[in-house]
Amino acid sequence: MSKTFIFGHKNPDTDTITAALAYAYLKKQLGQEVEAVRLGEVNNETQYALDYFKVEAPRYVSTVADEVDSVILVDHNERQQSVDDIEKVQVKEVIDHHRIANFETNDPLYYRAEPVGCTATILKKIYQENNVAIPKEIAGLMFSAIISDSLLFKSPTCTEEDVQAADALATIAGVDPQTYGLEMLKAGADLSDKTVEELISLDAKEFNMAGTSVEVAQVNTVDINDVLANQTAIEEAIQQTIDKKQLGLFAFVVTDILNNDSVILALGDKQKTVEQAFDVTLTNNQALLKGVVSRKKQIVPNIQGALA
Amino acid sequence: MSKTFIFGHKNPDTDTITAALAYAYLKKQLGQEVEAVRLGEVNNETQYALDYFKVEAPRYVSTVADEVDSVILVDHNERQQSVDDIEKVQVKEVIDHHRIANFETNDPLYYRAEPVGCTATILKKIYQENNVAIPKEIAGLMFSAIISDSLLFKSPTCTEEDVQAADALATIAGVDPQTYGLEMLKAGADLSDKTVEELISLDAKEFNMAGTSVEVAQVNTVDINDVLANQTAIEEAIQQTIDKKQLGLFAFVVTDILNNDSVILALGDKQKTVEQAFDVTLTNNQALLKGVVSRKKQIVPNIQGALA
Repeated sequence: MSKTFIFGHKNPDTDTITAALAYAYLKKQLGQEVEAVRLGEVNNETQYALDYFKVEAPRYVSTVADEVDSVILVDHNERQQSVDDIEKVQVKEVIDHHRIANFETNDPLYYRAEPVGCTATILKKIYQENNVAIPKEIAGLMFSAIISDSLLFKSPTCTEEDVQAADALATIAGVDPQTYGLEMLKAGADLSDKTVEELISLDAKEFNMAGTSVEVAQVNTVDINDVLANQTAIEEAIQQTIDKKQLGLFAFVVTDILNNDSVILALGDKQKTVEQAFDVTLTNNQALLKGVVSRKKQIVPNIQGALA
Repeated sequence: MSKTFIFGHKNPDTDTITAALAYAYLKKQLGQEVEAVRLGEVNNETQYALDYFKVEAPRYVSTVADEVDSVILVDHNERQQSVDDIEKVQVKEVIDHHRIANFETNDPLYYRAEPVGCTATILKKIYQENNVAIPKEIAGLMFSAIISDSLLFKSPTCTEEDVQAADALATIAGVDPQTYGLEMLKAGADLSDKTVEELISLDAKEFNMAGTSVEVAQVNTVDINDVLANQTAIEEAIQQTIDKKQLGLFAFVVTDILNNDSVILALGDKQKTVEQAFDVTLTNNQALLKGVVSRKKQIVPNIQGALA
């Protein structure tokens, strides 16, 4: 079992799927035996990018230890966001752009995290450091990841490095950044085929914050009211998740990709924490968060601060 | 408080002290306001290197939050090896070559770990990536760090990258690797001026292994019997440390830098773990560990495995 799996987090988004593919391509060029895999369904936005650049999605796996001894994590590090049997394999590398938490190894490893908006921006550097040219379709996927994570450069997580990387990648990929970017985001914002269970798990991440289990799910849309029209059914599904996972808080964040505001729908014993975190009042379990689009930079730190 | 402190672990060794100095120099060249500091006494080996290259030791600090808001860790990440008030400041960056454990942040950061033998080897790359020339005296200190961590390239932690970095740094520094390297190691192996309390704390690191607090102290020597001549007094000092820190195991490892064997002296409730870890029998609390020189690669993983 000399092969190494490369994968991103559960409930994969565009950065997680494309980072696995892009890093696997690079590793293969360097003569290493790797395979990109995924831990969940490909969402509509990611599928749009894969179809556009004619790349197949990585293979789905639910566990890894039966196939490999070692893994490389991209776009995540926290254990609860990773594969269920992560404890049974050696983590050889991590390429990530998130905080570090609930992560521990017995041995030294290659860990490359940078406070940029997207894993693809770091991967582009690693390609460069290894003198490997980025093929057109991989550049297209990496560009898609930056557009996805930065909401077309509008998220506060987006750095100058991300913008420059995206520009260079769009040129290699031969796409117009704004036109392609908006089409891809719109494909992801099409939630018409989703059940309520899918809506709240599509891009959900679990965190341990000051002893409380918190899940923050986020969806992009062009019409927030449309997504929340079915609020009763959504709340039922959220409540089931809270009961099943023993969560103290479930925050469902619906982000308008056109005006960059979000509505948060919060349930759980620690529901009121949200009011303190964002200085808002929940009405019908909801509040408008003006200018909030980033889970990483605006939502998680605020809730964490309020819970601490 | 816009300044950032850069420091390595408690009970500093040559890599920790020189990495703080070398990274601070680089950061200053990049226009950042930083200061290298240290968390403990400079040992004889490090002092030899500092004197040889005419560089002043970093300033000693016992806490940091009264002076800065943010810090950069080099050569360590585990909380118990870092400054006492680490929780009160933001960790902006980590440059390290150890396992990751007991480390958590609220925010994304720059984290650069590589499974090489020495922090200096990673720093040399970062200099290169930033197109900053390494001055002669800084190159000398970085070379000293590689010699120290690799025991003149004989430790199993030493990689081809470390050897190549050391060669290049020795050339910049204008020293003969073997001659200078052996003189420096011998300066560190001179323990004649040390009290027993100093002997067991000079290069001691604390670990949490499967719920047990374990301290592993290591000293280099050219005569193991000479170091252990005073075994009764050493054991008394170790027992006091065990009682004070509630340790399950204290392992004092005395390494012969000429023949690359070590003797381990183990005390604590979990003393017998050492027999299992290294497949040896303790006699008079001691055992010879043939060919064992690396705490990181040979001692910690074996004890961790036996405790798990």
